[in-house]
Amino acid sequence: MHKSNNANELFLGIDGGGSKSKAIIMNKSNEVLGTGIAGPGNPMHGFDQATNAITQSATLALIDAKLSHLNLCQLNAGVGLAGVNLPSLFDKMQAWQHPFKQMYLTTDLHIACLGAHQKEDGAVIISGTGSCGFSYIDTQTFIIGGHGFPQGDQASGAWFGFKAVEHVLLSLDGLIDVSLMNNLLLTKLGCKNSTALVEAIAGKDATYFAQLAHIVFDAADKGDKVAITIIQEGAEYIDSIARTLWNKKPARLSMIGGLTASLTPWLNTEVQTWLSAPKSAPEVGAVFFARNEAFKKHNNTTHK
Amino acid sequence: MHKSNNANELFLGIDGGGSKSKAIIMNKSNEVLGTGIAGPGNPMHGFDQATNAITQSATLALIDAKLSHLNLCQLNAGVGLAGVNLPSLFDKMQAWQHPFKQMYLTTDLHIACLGAHQKEDGAVIISGTGSCGFSYIDTQTFIIGGHGFPQGDQASGAWFGFKAVEHVLLSLDGLIDVSLMNNLLLTKLGCKNSTALVEAIAGKDATYFAQLAHIVFDAADKGDKVAITIIQEGAEYIDSIARTLWNKKPARLSMIGGLTASLTPWLNTEVQTWLSAPKSAPEVGAVFFARNEAFKKHNNTTHK
Repeated sequence: MHKSNNANELFLGIDGGGSKSKAIIMNKSNEVLGTGIAGPGNPMHGFDQATNAITQSATLALIDAKLSHLNLCQLNAGVGLAGVNLPSLFDKMQAWQHPFKQMYLTTDLHIACLGAHQKEDGAVIISGTGSCGFSYIDTQTFIIGGHGFPQGDQASGAWFGFKAVEHVLLSLDGLIDVSLMNNLLLTKLGCKNSTALVEAIAGKDATYFAQLAHIVFDAADKGDKVAITIIQEGAEYIDSIARTLWNKKPARLSMIGGLTASLTPWLNTEVQTWLSAPKSAPEVGAVFFARNEAFKKHNNTTHK
Repeated sequence: MHKSNNANELFLGIDGGGSKSKAIIMNKSNEVLGTGIAGPGNPMHGFDQATNAITQSATLALIDAKLSHLNLCQLNAGVGLAGVNLPSLFDKMQAWQHPFKQMYLTTDLHIACLGAHQKEDGAVIISGTGSCGFSYIDTQTFIIGGHGFPQGDQASGAWFGFKAVEHVLLSLDGLIDVSLMNNLLLTKLGCKNSTALVEAIAGKDATYFAQLAHIVFDAADKGDKVAITIIQEGAEYIDSIARTLWNKKPARLSMIGGLTASLTPWLNTEVQTWLSAPKSAPEVGAVFFARNEAFKKHNNTTHK
């Protein structure tokens, strides 16, 4: 073990999203020592589930880094979570009796932006389980979209999966064109008809629907008109988010999240030219955030 | 009390929908002796809630009829429920240890159709909390739509309320035109912004969203373009349901449910000419259903 890998110089970065929580341990030289993945970290879908997943992902990262002799209470953690843009959820998570030395809490959007650009300023469009636009420019935070599933988060994985279900039900009723998605979806869920489909999806959450998103893209690849219409609607939404962010003149604009590769070719060609590849992952952004906050805190303390 | 109002000749009719359960007591001469209203009767949103509401509405109808000396176990009941077109829910409700002498269970659609046309054959379009098309022609049952909220039930109260929320969030983000619905909705829910709106609607059900439907129609009345677009989309859906049903050549086609008056003027003018006013309410149809079933049962027994 390197001498530099003492607990004071290590940082945990955690990206808690709607589908999973990713943890990373980085040393002073930005080397990744270990990673861990656990369940959904969005506290909107359950405080206990989210906090357990965050702790578990961090513990797995410690094990992966062969640092099991250390304890989470010796490490500073940057934690970026989906859902905590809602003040009530932010306060709830901030009040968590967390297992870390210090927890620096912010939104998943903020750490994604810090990770993508490796500096404070910039903008990101996220399309994973959920969707959102975010910019941080001259200390100003701006959020657009991201109102959650099913009322918002257009063009997210959950939205595409839900649209597939909606359109398959209409198609099976003969109210819109026959779609390749009909068989793809019924086969995937082991359903024989609309009734079984409705029973299968009853009460399911964003994470569940996000797992169905690929059906839309698979069908569109084969020229399915219904699927193509859904993707065009989603792409227009992302275009409008991109235009709003671009008008704020960010140094860089990146698109991130699980649907980035599938969706990008469907965006307006000008919008595509605005996009820069992200430099690093959101969990790395969480480490940058924690380091900055720890540094500010240290300075505030020593200057008092 | 009339001599004819003995328990053997009285029938309970119950219409259990997503927002409320309505009970009616009718005598042999089709006179309504009493009515009762209780909470939601759709077992999809809770078996206990539904069965309690059904029992309560029936008890209230007995009291209203000044027949409190009778017991529910002396009465035959026709019970039409939302949700029981799903086989699993039908079986669950059929297994209910109900308080009636006999319970004749069918869908809310079937009793609505029997009530609207006062005979077996005919077709109905329902737009209340949920939406659906139904026909019963030559002993053949046909259902279209009605896949539940939020994945189906287009042009229902829940759908309009949900579309209002969806569009207000887009409008507040500046991604679509400013809408009169923005202030109407925020004021109604006591919210100051998108974040508060998202918190207010989190986890809410179809009944909740149905109570917001009038906002779309109120705004459209004042010429709001966003609201008008939503209503046009809903009306096109109802038009397509109506065309599917009309192709089956029903003796009569009626539209029923809380949104009928608001929606009808937006339908295609030819579709409007197909619609006949319903003759009686679904709970009356539930009595017709129970009488028919009791008669069939009696004949089967005596002919054995």
